[in-house]
Amino acid sequence: MPGAKVYTDYKELLKDETIEVVHVLTPNRAHSFITVDALNAGKHVMCEKPMAINSEEAIKMLEAAKANNKKLTIGYQGRQRPDSLYLKQEAEQGTFGDIYFAKATAIRRRAVPTWGVFINEYEQGGGPLIDIGTHALDLTLWTMNNYKPKYCVGTTYHKLNSLPKDEQGNAWGPWDSEKYTAEDSAFGFIVMEDGATIILESAWAINLLDPREAITTVAGTKAGADMLDGLRINGIRNGRQYVLKPDLNAGGVAFYDGAGSEDPSYREARLWIEAVINDTEPSVLPEQALVVTQILEGIYESAKTGKPYYFS
Amino acid sequence: MPGAKVYTDYKELLKDETIEVVHVLTPNRAHSFITVDALNAGKHVMCEKPMAINSEEAIKMLEAAKANNKKLTIGYQGRQRPDSLYLKQEAEQGTFGDIYFAKATAIRRRAVPTWGVFINEYEQGGGPLIDIGTHALDLTLWTMNNYKPKYCVGTTYHKLNSLPKDEQGNAWGPWDSEKYTAEDSAFGFIVMEDGATIILESAWAINLLDPREAITTVAGTKAGADMLDGLRINGIRNGRQYVLKPDLNAGGVAFYDGAGSEDPSYREARLWIEAVINDTEPSVLPEQALVVTQILEGIYESAKTGKPYYFS
Amino acid sequence: MPGAKVYTDYKELLKDETIEVVHVLTPNRAHSFITVDALNAGKHVMCEKPMAINSEEAIKMLEAAKANNKKLTIGYQGRQRPDSLYLKQEAEQGTFGDIYFAKATAIRRRAVPTWGVFINEYEQGGGPLIDIGTHALDLTLWTMNNYKPKYCVGTTYHKLNSLPKDEQGNAWGPWDSEKYTAEDSAFGFIVMEDGATIILESAWAINLLDPREAITTVAGTKAGADMLDGLRINGIRNGRQYVLKPDLNAGGVAFYDGAGSEDPSYREARLWIEAVINDTEPSVLPEQALVVTQILEGIYESAKTGKPYYFS
Amino acid sequence: MPGAKVYTDYKELLKDETIEVVHVLTPNRAHSFITVDALNAGKHVMCEKPMAINSEEAIKMLEAAKANNKKLTIGYQGRQRPDSLYLKQEAEQGTFGDIYFAKATAIRRRAVPTWGVFINEYEQGGGPLIDIGTHALDLTLWTMNNYKPKYCVGTTYHKLNSLPKDEQGNAWGPWDSEKYTAEDSAFGFIVMEDGATIILESAWAINLLDPREAITTVAGTKAGADMLDGLRINGIRNGRQYVLKPDLNAGGVAFYDGAGSEDPSYREARLWIEAVINDTEPSVLPEQALVVTQILEGIYESAKTGKPYYFS
Amino acid sequence: MPGAKVYTDYKELLKDETIEVVHVLTPNRAHSFITVDALNAGKHVMCEKPMAINSEEAIKMLEAAKANNKKLTIGYQGRQRPDSLYLKQEAEQGTFGDIYFAKATAIRRRAVPTWGVFINEYEQGGGPLIDIGTHALDLTLWTMNNYKPKYCVGTTYHKLNSLPKDEQGNAWGPWDSEKYTAEDSAFGFIVMEDGATIILESAWAINLLDPREAITTVAGTKAGADMLDGLRINGIRNGRQYVLKPDLNAGGVAFYDGAGSEDPSYREARLWIEAVINDTEPSVLPEQALVVTQILEGIYESAKTGKPYYFS
Amino acid sequence: MPGAKVYTDYKELLKDETIEVVHVLTPNRAHSFITVDALNAGKHVMCEKPMAINSEEAIKMLEAAKANNKKLTIGYQGRQRPDSLYLKQEAEQGTFGDIYFAKATAIRRRAVPTWGVFINEYEQGGGPLIDIGTHALDLTLWTMNNYKPKYCVGTTYHKLNSLPKDEQGNAWGPWDSEKYTAEDSAFGFIVMEDGATIILESAWAINLLDPREAITTVAGTKAGADMLDGLRINGIRNGRQYVLKPDLNAGGVAFYDGAGSEDPSYREARLWIEAVINDTEPSVLPEQALVVTQILEGIYESAKTGKPYYFS
Repeated sequence: MPGAKVYTDYKELLKDETIEVVHVLTPNRAHSFITVDALNAGKHVMCEKPMAINSEEAIKMLEAAKANNKKLTIGYQGRQRPDSLYLKQEAEQGTFGDIYFAKATAIRRRAVPTWGVFINEYEQGGGPLIDIGTHALDLTLWTMNNYKPKYCVGTTYHKLNSLPKDEQGNAWGPWDSEKYTAEDSAFGFIVMEDGATIILESAWAINLLDPREAITTVAGTKAGADMLDGLRINGIRNGRQYVLKPDLNAGGVAFYDGAGSEDPSYREARLWIEAVINDTEPSVLPEQALVVTQILEGIYESAKTGKPYYFS
Repeated sequence: MPGAKVYTDYKELLKDETIEVVHVLTPNRAHSFITVDALNAGKHVMCEKPMAINSEEAIKMLEAAKANNKKLTIGYQGRQRPDSLYLKQEAEQGTFGDIYFAKATAIRRRAVPTWGVFINEYEQGGGPLIDIGTHALDLTLWTMNNYKPKYCVGTTYHKLNSLPKDEQGNAWGPWDSEKYTAEDSAFGFIVMEDGATIILESAWAINLLDPREAITTVAGTKAGADMLDGLRINGIRNGRQYVLKPDLNAGGVAFYDGAGSEDPSYREARLWIEAVINDTEPSVLPEQALVVTQILEGIYESAKTGKPYYFS
Repeated sequence: MPGAKVYTDYKELLKDETIEVVHVLTPNRAHSFITVDALNAGKHVMCEKPMAINSEEAIKMLEAAKANNKKLTIGYQGRQRPDSLYLKQEAEQGTFGDIYFAKATAIRRRAVPTWGVFINEYEQGGGPLIDIGTHALDLTLWTMNNYKPKYCVGTTYHKLNSLPKDEQGNAWGPWDSEKYTAEDSAFGFIVMEDGATIILESAWAINLLDPREAITTVAGTKAGADMLDGLRINGIRNGRQYVLKPDLNAGGVAFYDGAGSEDPSYREARLWIEAVINDTEPSVLPEQALVVTQILEGIYESAKTGKPYYFS
Repeated sequence: MPGAKVYTDYKELLKDETIEVVHVLTPNRAHSFITVDALNAGKHVMCEKPMAINSEEAIKMLEAAKANNKKLTIGYQGRQRPDSLYLKQEAEQGTFGDIYFAKATAIRRRAVPTWGVFINEYEQGGGPLIDIGTHALDLTLWTMNNYKPKYCVGTTYHKLNSLPKDEQGNAWGPWDSEKYTAEDSAFGFIVMEDGATIILESAWAINLLDPREAITTVAGTKAGADMLDGLRINGIRNGRQYVLKPDLNAGGVAFYDGAGSEDPSYREARLWIEAVINDTEPSVLPEQALVVTQILEGIYESAKTGKPYYFS
Repeated sequence: MPGAKVYTDYKELLKDETIEVVHVLTPNRAHSFITVDALNAGKHVMCEKPMAINSEEAIKMLEAAKANNKKLTIGYQGRQRPDSLYLKQEAEQGTFGDIYFAKATAIRRRAVPTWGVFINEYEQGGGPLIDIGTHALDLTLWTMNNYKPKYCVGTTYHKLNSLPKDEQGNAWGPWDSEKYTAEDSAFGFIVMEDGATIILESAWAINLLDPREAITTVAGTKAGADMLDGLRINGIRNGRQYVLKPDLNAGGVAFYDGAGSEDPSYREARLWIEAVINDTEPSVLPEQALVVTQILEGIYESAKTGKPYYFS
Repeated sequence: MPGAKVYTDYKELLKDETIEVVHVLTPNRAHSFITVDALNAGKHVMCEKPMAINSEEAIKMLEAAKANNKKLTIGYQGRQRPDSLYLKQEAEQGTFGDIYFAKATAIRRRAVPTWGVFINEYEQGGGPLIDIGTHALDLTLWTMNNYKPKYCVGTTYHKLNSLPKDEQGNAWGPWDSEKYTAEDSAFGFIVMEDGATIILESAWAINLLDPREAITTVAGTKAGADMLDGLRINGIRNGRQYVLKPDLNAGGVAFYDGAGSEDPSYREARLWIEAVINDTEPSVLPEQALVVTQILEGIYESAKTGKPYYFS
């Protein structure tokens, strides 16, 4: 942006008293210490997802926000999609009753991000689980409004990351197997304190058809919903199974799709700015993001130890 | 059948020396003791799936077969379907490489069996998990050719079985909530000794769209397959993602679907009779069926205790 | 039916005191006098639709029923279809709010009934309007639960009934133009006392695509419904336009369509027998059928006079 | 447009003798007096549809054109669409024979124009009937080439215009219920002097699926046509029902849709300019547009009085 | 058929003077001599297609019919299909103008007839070309009404008939490669005296998708037609490319497909009986069938010699 | 391009010693002499397809290239399409076995190129056969890797080129019948020395539905492939007929089609530049292009003489 001031050391930026809000968009490893420094410097912080590479680092961020009485939010932009917003609204209205089973899905057949340090486990804390599974899990917990995990188990795989380049078939061109230290797929089974189950599936590369990313499926005592063919709600009405599809484009006219919905990234920015200006709660609470990070950590731990991971 | 001899006490039947082979088609609870008695009476036995209500009972059956040197098989007829047979053949040819992730799926939106004692947990040992999940799991283990589970976790639910009759929307008419003591849905996450993951989903009643029954999905190092739109194989070929669909109807002619495949139930019977006559191994080995029963038991146990269940 | 007693003069039948209930299935012209005789002979009567060839004859039937304190019903079987029953249930629950616009549609592209006296205006009182339009109108009034018409206008046509046989393209083979005295299509616009509008379209033969028979479309203040692609309900929910489709086959299982719905003709018979036995109101009240006949009469009259027809 | 001269009082513009042609694009109420003034000032006038808010005002326009011997046309651009032009050509070739039944359809599920004064009945003379129903009716009369209405009936509704904003689901965002004085839907049944029927349906907001705008359906003695799935012609040929679809994109090549058709708005402008330059009849005659306005007036009148409206 | 008289020597049958008509349904090699004997015995003969294994044999049949003044027809039943009859009617009406390009197609992916002697070249005179290609060619010539071939070239293949049984994938089960002496596919290019081209493709087994059997495609100066998605007619109308689809099921009503068409085999029999009784020309003239046989012979000859085959 | 030097006489350009490579993009008649002059002037030449208007001219080009030891290639860009490249790769891997039947297809329903001299037979050497059929044939020969034709027959037509303008329905607007001297469609049947058959169909204007351009279909002893619904491979696998579809967009992710393939025209240019710089063989060898031209010449000759055309 013309006229923008560029810093090569973030600590210099933090000294600038005219700056009130900082956005952290670095590799995951740096999320925590930059955020903590910024909060300590008296800035509000929006940090990109995931919150941090593990829960210890995430807790430092949360504590720094509280200690400095500054706002902290995490960039789970997927919540601002029209389908997510509609689903959440129905959930809050009690449409689904008690949600006891859910799936958080982020499956790519072959779409390993080949730029930056995405495939470097040390820098990122993991691969598809922490990169895209995190979106699907956040969306699922938010829809369920359930942030109390009891325990989880998980598995991670490094099965396709050493494929020769000409057998990769990757959406963004071949990756460098030498540098690809993160997992290529990861799966988890999470049992919540109230007994609910969440199945999490994530992959950057796997031999499964029909890729789906950052979607959720919920089944409750009154109804269910999925995003497998657009947003669909299902249940029983007058003794008949039904499916209900909302038109998320407004529409209703032959030649026009409707004024449509606010762009998710614009909406995320608007809500954050409003929260800062009006001193209200941000749309994504850091306490919620922390639970996401704890569960991902639990899955990674279980995959390493071959044992379940208990929360608390 | 005209001329058939009818017994009201199975022990009388076992005394009939002209009978060589006995088929056990009772509620699950009776599978074990009738089978053991029959084997001890010198009969070969085909017992309907699941093998037994738990592994202890199943082991008795296996031991009786060995002690009497008689053949024992379990009615996992799903293996004889054209899609299952084709999938198994590809698996044995190495098409998929090392299968490290699989899903065993048996989801009904609303199709609780209302006749007999299907919904009685005491008589059957459980609900959809042991009734239809068992088929999906058998098919999955057989395709993977992997019978060494390490541990599993699971959850079971009784969320919809007490619905009022006019809110059930059941395919076979309303069930009697008083008598419905089995679960209505059950889920499991199984980690095999070689590190592979199996996710099992089963329900007789749940608010999920697109019901699917007794199917498997496998993802291996070389390719994958599912049954979500007929049998489909997927992978990479010459650097391109592909999908391959076999025509299981033979076909190839404009006015005719082809002579088609042997009916699964006929094939099951034929293979069993051949095994008895030729003194060869039956198509479904009791040792394989025992592993299915052990895993189901592990899921039921984990659901009760809230802890993982370790095999061995 | 073996053992059934056959009469060649219906008056003989009416003398048989062992007969309690009479069904009248004659050409329309005979509906009234046979029904009146039967009621006077102390029988309950189910008369096929339409009630009579005009309202004067229909009123005689209604008065005879009251005078003899016997039950009378008219065979509007279309109400017993699963889609009709579901629609009515939603309407009674207030789903649609105030229904102010509706369409009653019974359009055949080319399907003139060539047997019996269907195409004889004298015997039947008319053509497609009184034969199939009557079903669509009954279904519409019943869904709206609105039996107070204010006025109507209408048009009838005899445009295609004199086509040469080889240009007819009729579903049941060519008709005899000489004998075809009834209209081939008829249209009406009905304004109800509460201001609601009903548009009625009926044809046995017309150059329109997409034939549709005996269906209704309703638009209310809260929601609407049609039967143009199965039964569909539409409206606004959480600010979004939606469409909801009930599964009228029960279903919910991969291999089975569900136990399904009672056959409409069986259900019609069952409800009628129950009404007679339990001395309760029949499913189709003669007062309702009278209003249908009055409106059809109004449309025929308006078509003849070129003026609107006012009720009362 | 750079260099364009802007007037704030149209009377000043009319004094400019270098201007030969005036286009009137104001709210409907101003159509008549500006057009009359312009014609009196010696200009040719193209006035946007509808011609005027009622027939009295429209007649003034027609008379002014005649008195001044200037050209007047009305902007029924829908006639210049490729489907309309093709349909008209077939009609003129006699494909349909005598058209005795037609539908003029302009239904929006939820697309109330929220800008300008569209929803103000005083300024516009009405709502969807005069705004979009007018297009569908013009197209229908033009295809039938029938401008002699005998009588009509009609109904108008204000059922959804007072919905709360969050229940509107409007394509262009919420409307202001306070300002929304026009109808939200309107229906008419028109009988022509030759006995033909036209059913008119129009809505900006109604609970009906499948919105369709400014289309016509015609049924004649030889064939019919509709625009429900692109332009389709239907009838009987060699004793078989057929459907014929013209490819309005030219096409006929695998990689290209064809040079296509002239843009309707360009074509409208071109034809008008040619008519002025060559002193020939404009494409839309003011006498035709007057009949459209008369029929709309008849429907509005009938809706108010609850009686039919007779023309002449 | 009960009471039917069975002969084991056809010559005995020919001696039965009560028999007027003989149907010859033997392997192709026997068509000629049995037919000739039957005609000489004073019978009318319907002989199954192809007329004979070569033109020399076919000519004997034609001459015997003439010499004995008896009727002879060949069972090209495909002409009696509703699509064929409709196509022929349009062709006779001049819809297509001068047909100068056509395709006769009879392609099966894998549907070798495994019963009888179908795969025996000696008994049948060939494989798919003479068995099913013959139907497609007859239909094409009949539609073109063009029986004057100038020359042709052709190729035949024996590429898949020696496949191992488990690689055949045949619709009717595996064939016996030892016995399979006929070709598995054959292709021809026929130039007619008036310059028209016919491309013939036939196969019982070939690696092509979308099998199609006994269909024709014609392109003429005014229009064209194919049977690739039901019968479709195409051309230009009012400057636009169109496609016209006749509804061969009658139809035109929502709940019924129409009284439909006469069954082709019944129609073939009816027309033949009428021809015999009324002493009129049979539906399929032997002179037409002879040309089909001549062309097939030409293709077989060209395939053997690697040179074109000239007729005349 | 700014700064580009423009010559009005190509001979001037050839004198410019700074130019190493010349691209010839003229009407076909000029391909040969400009190319020969350029080669003689020491330039490498890429000449647009077809190589020349006949084989005599093409051979001159080939000889000039050899004599001057310069590179010559022909612009058969269709080989560089993703589907063509994938098909070739499979062919080279032996997927199809021995390809014995193929189709080269370039059919336009109505898409005569109306600009330049495309329709002038003298300037171009022909019409659709030499213009687009040449692409389809080059692709077919390249896939088969078979450049030894034995003989061919062919037909060409001038049936639609004299249509009146308003009956042409051409994708690029009407053509000038006076100037249209080339054929409008052409067909060929080519027999290769190894016995394989190629059927060639080409048209700029013909009454056939489903236009397809520059595609090939191949059937081999092991498998086949076509481009009728994207690239599809078919054959038998484990006794079942299969179809395999590669995803030529990479893909494998829900929100992105994949980095995709190199643009065919960019790829063509890149390969040519690399061949020049590295002194390697160009992607399209002139010897291959010569065979294409020889076959087209054979078809034109056969169409003129009514006799087969033998190569060598």
